[in-house]
Amino acid sequence: MKSSLAGNSSAIPEQGLVAGVDIGGSNLRIALADCHGRVLARCNTSTKGTSSPDGVIALIEQGIQQLLQQSCCSDRSLLSVAAGAPGVTNSQSGLVLATSYLKGWKDVPLQQLLESALGVPAAVENDVRMAALGEHWMGTARGIDDFVFLAIGTGIAAGVFANGHLIHGSQWTAGEVGYMQIPHTTEEPARPGEPGALESAIAGDGIRRHWSRLCAENAHEQKLSATEIFARASGGDLLAQKVLDHSAELLACTVYNISLVLNSALFVLGGGIGVSVPLRDATKRVIKERYNEPSRPNIVISSLGSDAQLMGAIRLAMSTASSSSRVESAL
Amino acid sequence: MKSSLAGNSSAIPEQGLVAGVDIGGSNLRIALADCHGRVLARCNTSTKGTSSPDGVIALIEQGIQQLLQQSCCSDRSLLSVAAGAPGVTNSQSGLVLATSYLKGWKDVPLQQLLESALGVPAAVENDVRMAALGEHWMGTARGIDDFVFLAIGTGIAAGVFANGHLIHGSQWTAGEVGYMQIPHTTEEPARPGEPGALESAIAGDGIRRHWSRLCAENAHEQKLSATEIFARASGGDLLAQKVLDHSAELLACTVYNISLVLNSALFVLGGGIGVSVPLRDATKRVIKERYNEPSRPNIVISSLGSDAQLMGAIRLAMSTASSSSRVESAL
Repeated sequence: MKSSLAGNSSAIPEQGLVAGVDIGGSNLRIALADCHGRVLARCNTSTKGTSSPDGVIALIEQGIQQLLQQSCCSDRSLLSVAAGAPGVTNSQSGLVLATSYLKGWKDVPLQQLLESALGVPAAVENDVRMAALGEHWMGTARGIDDFVFLAIGTGIAAGVFANGHLIHGSQWTAGEVGYMQIPHTTEEPARPGEPGALESAIAGDGIRRHWSRLCAENAHEQKLSATEIFARASGGDLLAQKVLDHSAELLACTVYNISLVLNSALFVLGGGIGVSVPLRDATKRVIKERYNEPSRPNIVISSLGSDAQLMGAIRLAMSTASSSSRVESAL
Repeated sequence: MKSSLAGNSSAIPEQGLVAGVDIGGSNLRIALADCHGRVLARCNTSTKGTSSPDGVIALIEQGIQQLLQQSCCSDRSLLSVAAGAPGVTNSQSGLVLATSYLKGWKDVPLQQLLESALGVPAAVENDVRMAALGEHWMGTARGIDDFVFLAIGTGIAAGVFANGHLIHGSQWTAGEVGYMQIPHTTEEPARPGEPGALESAIAGDGIRRHWSRLCAENAHEQKLSATEIFARASGGDLLAQKVLDHSAELLACTVYNISLVLNSALFVLGGGIGVSVPLRDATKRVIKERYNEPSRPNIVISSLGSDAQLMGAIRLAMSTASSSSRVESAL
């Protein structure tokens, strides 16, 4: 069983603390939480120039030390840590198999490195699945056992819950929907390390490229981020509306195709672009007009926003502490 | 938990028997099996003219009686029955919610009807998921916890296993991939009761329509079934090869899109068209040429063929007998 969430948080000692870590491509975020998962302290730091595994581990160690001191807690109160990594992650063996964000990470034993550095049990998970875990625990998907967290930012990827458990797949790549082939995406074969067909069209670069192309054709102002373009579309800018409509059509089709496979009750949109209200509204409109059979998925914006991964990491750390205390008491 | 397979077959009494039923659009197949799942006797009958729930139940009752007599076993040796239905089926409540194959079936309490008629515990499941259960138990997917059974015949649908369990979805429609939107399918909105975009192109009618169109343009012989067209393609017929290539491109893209969501280790092709060797070979070729990132799914033909559903029904009946005997011994 590959689910990351088997433990029961109530088994954690009352004075115990856990740490959740969100390793991003450029930022590292750490939160310290009590036995009920309440965040006591948190910190953010940049990983720019420190993307080696040892460098990142050192930053995590320093960060947790700092948060423990800030909260007037001793090192001994830390029971466990969990970290989300931006790449293909084997949560069973604790290895980050590959990532395009942290250069040079290949088969990195992240779980083992964390355990050695911190002296407590650790768990690791892919960042998007970690965010899904967070949404299931205390976000929009609380109590919903069949849902998809869809992260749209520089890329697009899904964290899938089915039957109340995360789906990882046979090679830990479930949810890598950036390669999906839908109408109006390129049919060119995907090249290793390059963005997939859908990702090229709907994630950050693709949206900006579409906008630049339209601007060049219409002698219009350029250089806006995807969310700025979508906001401008809401304000009535016709060129921006074209970009928004196209993005919404691609996203609606993606959501629909995934929902045909899984019949998920809910799609939670996250990531820098995914949380755009105009994008959600336009996508819901397309879904309503076009995709009714056999069922119409509900689409909402993540209520945890950029904290989804960190909350997931806290949840995973809590279940890690819980399983580990059960193992200890059984010995 | 919605998995259909929770029980342990070893808990069935040694003299006990179970019955598996495969309710098709035009055929009803029944098998009687011993406590190890070995088939003792089987029968097929037509459901033409007898598609009402009561009529089908009467056919099942007669069939099982006949098989018990044939095997010189008393009615009392029957411990349970499980039936696969060709439509949206809630395996928890035992209702067939809707089916386009058996006219008039809507919210039919199939489980309850079977239990009343036969006096033993019953279980029901969607036919394609039942076939996946069969493949997981004793077919090509034995021991594989992440795989997809893809049935291609008059329609196309998937039975999905993830983390070793069947996925049903929030409204019991997981795997209804006939509506999937991929390049070269229509983008018209799906109408209730009508075939979906993918189904129109890749299932029986769509393949025959493609063939007829090419034949009309080329003054060629007409009226062949999809498998006959594919066999002719293998023999070198250029028009048939065009149809095969197009079908293989659509199927490869479908398999790829599903595998991106689930990262399934294996796709098992079943159904009248799915078991075509030329189609499998051509699809594997397209996958190899075009779809490598992030992983390439393996594609095989069902080893159980048209028995997959019946074997799944036996497996489900065994686990139903087992759970029921556990409940009884606990009372």
